[in-house]
Formats: sequence, structure tokens, C-alpha cells
Amino acid sequence: MDEVLKNISNFVAFNEVEADAFRSILKEKKLKRKEYLLREGQVGNYAAFIVKGCLRYYYIVNGEESTGQFFFENGWYADYESFLSGQPSTQNIEALEDCTLYLIYRKDLETLFSQHPVFEKFGRLMAERAVLGLKKKNEFLTLQSHEERYLQLINDRPKVIQRVSLKYIASYLGMKPESLSRIRKRLFNK
Amino acid sequence: MDEVLKNISNFVAFNEVEADAFRSILKEKKLKRKEYLLREGQVGNYAAFIVKGCLRYYYIVNGEESTGQFFFENGWYADYESFLSGQPSTQNIEALEDCTLYLIYRKDLETLFSQHPVFEKFGRLMAERAVLGLKKKNEFLTLQSHEERYLQLINDRPKVIQRVSLKYIASYLGMKPESLSRIRKRLFNK
Repeated sequence: MDEVLKNISNFVAFNEVEADAFRSILKEKKLKRKEYLLREGQVGNYAAFIVKGCLRYYYIVNGEESTGQFFFENGWYADYESFLSGQPSTQNIEALEDCTLYLIYRKDLETLFSQHPVFEKFGRLMAERAVLGLKKKNEFLTLQSHEERYLQLINDRPKVIQRVSLKYIASYLGMKPESLSRIRKRLFNK
Repeated sequence: MDEVLKNISNFVAFNEVEADAFRSILKEKKLKRKEYLLREGQVGNYAAFIVKGCLRYYYIVNGEESTGQFFFENGWYADYESFLSGQPSTQNIEALEDCTLYLIYRKDLETLFSQHPVFEKFGRLMAERAVLGLKKKNEFLTLQSHEERYLQLINDRPKVIQRVSLKYIASYLGMKPESLSRIRKRLFNK
């Protein structure tokens, strides 16, 4: 459980009472590979800290999967839209490896914020990181060619290259698996 | 100046001392139509509250403008990426109408957060709103046809339709002005 607090201590300083309050709202959740944390239509009213494993979220667009992001150990996942609005999610989130997670439900987090305002800063910094991640993904998809995207992914996120299958990487890059194969051939036969 | 505090009071409750502290970091800024608040390469180390007017931000992609968003009175603008990282911005932000703004510089905001932690919540909620806006734009661009995008814009953001010229609306929707004209003809001649 203290992996989570160690992670949070990167964002905010807290005392032992505050640490205990934070611990008390964590709910452990284990997923087998290919199990789902969330399916489209369910409410994503929690944030998840990933102790171990890898998650992928995707949307269904015109009958096909469009992969939004991958999340690894020591990272956080939330469907902010569903989390903040309480509305059903448009995402599907799947374990690509066996996962151990800690979930924090929104109502518990709101109570924590009001009783221990020190964690407001953590909430702000997490949301700010989400903004940066989304902007980066946005630019990634609008500003770059398929080949440039793949090269940038290799450079920025080696874990994705090492641990995620090519069909999901292609879906994340917004291309067909065949196109990614062609790009890989061209690059690696140089 | 109290437009800003009225806006913030929607997010967080504060007392008179805290209100004064917030007021003290606001810097008024006026822009004429077509003037720039920020150009690519400059650091966007502030958030801006819009008292009056309309701002547009755009990127240059392959020599052409790609419009990211429009901002109107009672709204907030920040280039979060530049704001948080201190790195030069990749955005250009232009006044589409004469504007009155209040700027809040990052260093002043950080001091405010540490002296008056009540405003951390404001920071969190703003970042969360930015997440929702970016996700919405992201889905808008990936999930919908050009015509659907335009219809959704009419429905969701009438101010954009009323106050922004067609060439910028087309750029926001990711299409050529000629394509938008064709869509408008088809829709309005039905």
C-alpha cells in the first residue's frame, strides 16, 4: 500500500495522520490479463493507482477500437470525464497484463480533500498532469506523420514498445497494423 | 476586478482577507482586436481571466493555422503546457475582439497557494475543467464527421457561431473554409 503514498509524496508533503487518512480510502483491486476495469456505459467514479501491470483504454469508433492511452506501474489512471461528471464512461479499460491496483472512489476523495486540505494540492497536480498528457496526445495526433509518431513513441515511452502488442500500438498511433508493419520494415531495414 | 472574484466564488469559498490576497496578484491587460497576447516561442507563464472580448489560440501546422480553441468573457485561458513547464509556447493567442483581461502570473499564483491554501481547490478545479475541455475537443476531432462537428458546435457553443468568422470556425473544425461553406449550404437549404 505504501507504493501509493510514496508516489504521492512526490507531489505533496503530509504527516502520519494525513497518511493514515489517505491509506484508509484505498481499495485494492486485482485484475487478470484481459479482464476489464471498466466498460463503456459504466461510471468511472474512481481514480486508480497501478502497483503492478499495464492498462489500456480504448473507445469504439465506427465499430473499431481506437486506443487512447497505456498506463503502467507507479502511474495513475482516471476517466476524468466520468469521474467528475458522474456520467457513464465512453471508455473501455482493459488489463494488458495481470494488474494490482488501488482504487480511490470520488466520494472518499472529496471527503479526504475537505478533512485534509493538504491533499488538494495533490488533486491539482494530478489534474495538471492529465492536462499535459492530453495536450501531448492531441499534438501527437494532429501535428505528426505516422512514422514520426512511431519514432517519438520509441523515444518517449520505451515501456509501450517493450510490453504492448503491435496491434494496440498501431491503434494508439491511429493507423492500421499493416501500416505499422510497413513503417517498421522501412525503419529497421535501413 | 470583482468579476474575477465572482467567477472564483463559483469554485471555492473565501473570506475578505483571502479575496484581497487574490486581488493583489491580478494584472490588468487590454488588447485591441488582432493584437496578440502570446506568440509561439514566448513563455505563457500566466493564466488569463477574460472580462470582455474573445481570444483564439492556434498552432502553425505545415504552414497553416490550426485553431485550438476560442475563449470568451467570464472564461479562463492558460497555455497549461508552457505555464507548468516554463518552456516556450507552441501556441499563438490572438484577440478576435477588443479585450480586457486579468493576468495571474505563475509565481504569484504559487505564492498565493502557499499563503492561502484555500485557493488550491480553485487550482484543482480549473485544471479539471481544462482536462474536460481537452478531452471533449479530442473526441470532437476523432469521433465525428465534419458536418456532425459543425452541428455540435452550433448546439454547444452558440457564441462561437455568433461572434467568430467562418474561416476561424473552419480552422477549429479541422476543415477548409470551402468545405464549411458547402456544409452550410447543404444544411441551410434543406
